[in-house]
Amino acid sequence: MSEYRHDPLHDRWVIVGNQRAARPQEFEEQIVRRAGQPCPFCAGSEDSTPAALTTYGERGNPGWTVRVVPNKFPAVERSPAANGAADSSELFASRPALGQHEVIIESPRHVVSLSELTADECRLVFAAYQDRLRSCQQDGQLKYVQIFKNVGAAAGASIEHSHSQLLALPHVPTHVQGELENCRRYHRQHGRPLLAAITEEELARRDRIVSQTEHLVAFCPWASRFPYEVWVVPRSPQPSFAAVPPAEAAETADLTRELIGRIEGALGPVGYNYLLHSQPFDTSRYDYYHWHIELFPRITKVAGFEWSTGVFINTVPPEAAAAELRSANFAVAKNLATVPTGKTS
Amino acid sequence: MSEYRHDPLHDRWVIVGNQRAARPQEFEEQIVRRAGQPCPFCAGSEDSTPAALTTYGERGNPGWTVRVVPNKFPAVERSPAANGAADSSELFASRPALGQHEVIIESPRHVVSLSELTADECRLVFAAYQDRLRSCQQDGQLKYVQIFKNVGAAAGASIEHSHSQLLALPHVPTHVQGELENCRRYHRQHGRPLLAAITEEELARRDRIVSQTEHLVAFCPWASRFPYEVWVVPRSPQPSFAAVPPAEAAETADLTRELIGRIEGALGPVGYNYLLHSQPFDTSRYDYYHWHIELFPRITKVAGFEWSTGVFINTVPPEAAAAELRSANFAVAKNLATVPTGKTS
Repeated sequence: MSEYRHDPLHDRWVIVGNQRAARPQEFEEQIVRRAGQPCPFCAGSEDSTPAALTTYGERGNPGWTVRVVPNKFPAVERSPAANGAADSSELFASRPALGQHEVIIESPRHVVSLSELTADECRLVFAAYQDRLRSCQQDGQLKYVQIFKNVGAAAGASIEHSHSQLLALPHVPTHVQGELENCRRYHRQHGRPLLAAITEEELARRDRIVSQTEHLVAFCPWASRFPYEVWVVPRSPQPSFAAVPPAEAAETADLTRELIGRIEGALGPVGYNYLLHSQPFDTSRYDYYHWHIELFPRITKVAGFEWSTGVFINTVPPEAAAAELRSANFAVAKNLATVPTGKTS
Repeated sequence: MSEYRHDPLHDRWVIVGNQRAARPQEFEEQIVRRAGQPCPFCAGSEDSTPAALTTYGERGNPGWTVRVVPNKFPAVERSPAANGAADSSELFASRPALGQHEVIIESPRHVVSLSELTADECRLVFAAYQDRLRSCQQDGQLKYVQIFKNVGAAAGASIEHSHSQLLALPHVPTHVQGELENCRRYHRQHGRPLLAAITEEELARRDRIVSQTEHLVAFCPWASRFPYEVWVVPRSPQPSFAAVPPAEAAETADLTRELIGRIEGALGPVGYNYLLHSQPFDTSRYDYYHWHIELFPRITKVAGFEWSTGVFINTVPPEAAAAELRSANFAVAKNLATVPTGKTS
């Protein structure tokens, strides 16, 4: 039983859950403690998750390569119970935490990082992102889908086995509204999309480019909040990742996997997050927007200054980070080499 | 050599430093590694910091109780060098990282948490906050001062010895602008300050109150972003902490120290941050604003969903947190009991 609560001092929404208050050691040691227990996401442990919403790949044993399940401890729910304590006053506003919370299990094998997936597994993950986006879009009640990945305890992962999450919401969250508004304003003033202008300028300057493919550019953004932050942006304007052709989605999978390999090559195994921004589900046109991925290793802690001002301090200039990532020796799993379940489709 | 850089997609500023790129183990292990070295903030190690800007208390040996020094690795500087790479285009805007970065060393003894300071030490710390605020206010170039405290590696501290930091900036940062604007709008619509309305309603409802003193109220806010987050708000509107009478500043010190003792009593030793918001330095009137403290233990990790949406998920309802903190057995250092340097003034 969760609810959205509004903070009028900062004009922001928080999802307040109603789970039993956990102790810090429970927060901190989730991954460590689970290491001694059977992994709930491995092949053979399918009973330890809610029943799959859908699976992708391999029809043999275990019958799946990528498996999508409802989150066992969802932050939002399809039919949230009304909370007696909630009210809609201006000072203490609340809304039911309506939505959908899914987990995308990325391999039947116990691997930790996207770089350990085979190319085919990784491509199936990004195909699953597209498929789940389309499924939520057809729902009618949901306005926005956030897909994201947490790897490592430092990045907020509570289960080690490589997985992504999807949170579908009945409204567009503030950060995404801000991105859309900034892109709309730039387009109105300059007659072209902001991310097209940035990408073109990055390609001309070259010093923050990390990697390029036919349809995509990966660069360390000018005002990176985090050391070694990388964005993946399509060369041509396309607001919806759900609408990207399958070959480009596979290209996105390959590039993201390569970038994580480069980050791990430069820094060693590190926790990281990535997030996929794609247009909201409504009838508006978002021609001025590009879907994109923001990826960052979690090697620094957010401290009091950042929390109080919103201004991040980044001691690794993105030009230096990009140069390191370009020259990094990186490894990604050889295709099929370690998949025990045979050929993936 | 640092600069502010603007991110046009998210309309936010980042301070990009030019220090040598550090490796993750260097980020992560700062506190651990320093444990084997002499502490640069202890009495007797005064030479390992830049010369003190000012000291408070004790004139005997070591001659100080609270010591304010320039940060040895400042994020902002009084005379920042112009950065050749910077420009002021709309896509890649930058500004020199002008400002002042100070460290407030809170005791000559090697203690870690504010709860380990004696009452007198803690009061001197808050008197130092007031004094440094006033000093920056007189400067003329500086528009806003952020005072904050990081305790523990999880909260971003890189030195164990209990200290606060002050960052003075030539402009008002976005988060603080947002608070001011939300308070101004509420005041215009309702004829009274937002934080006065919230505090009054919290006192009436009681379930989120943690502690009260003559001039202050401490409560877990309705839409707490973090488990066990607590705000300290003055009962009467007062926009500037610098203008608070000395007795109320001492009351703030005592209450903050008590709250940290309560958090540690409920959760054990944990990392935490607090931040002090006070009005900007300009000629505007901020009658609609209250200075306040936001305090939160760092027992959860910020994950991909929060970074991508700005929406935090908090699994400990503030009503449950407040009840736990009210009933916590807490300890704060007995006055003078362990101060080797004798009476503080």
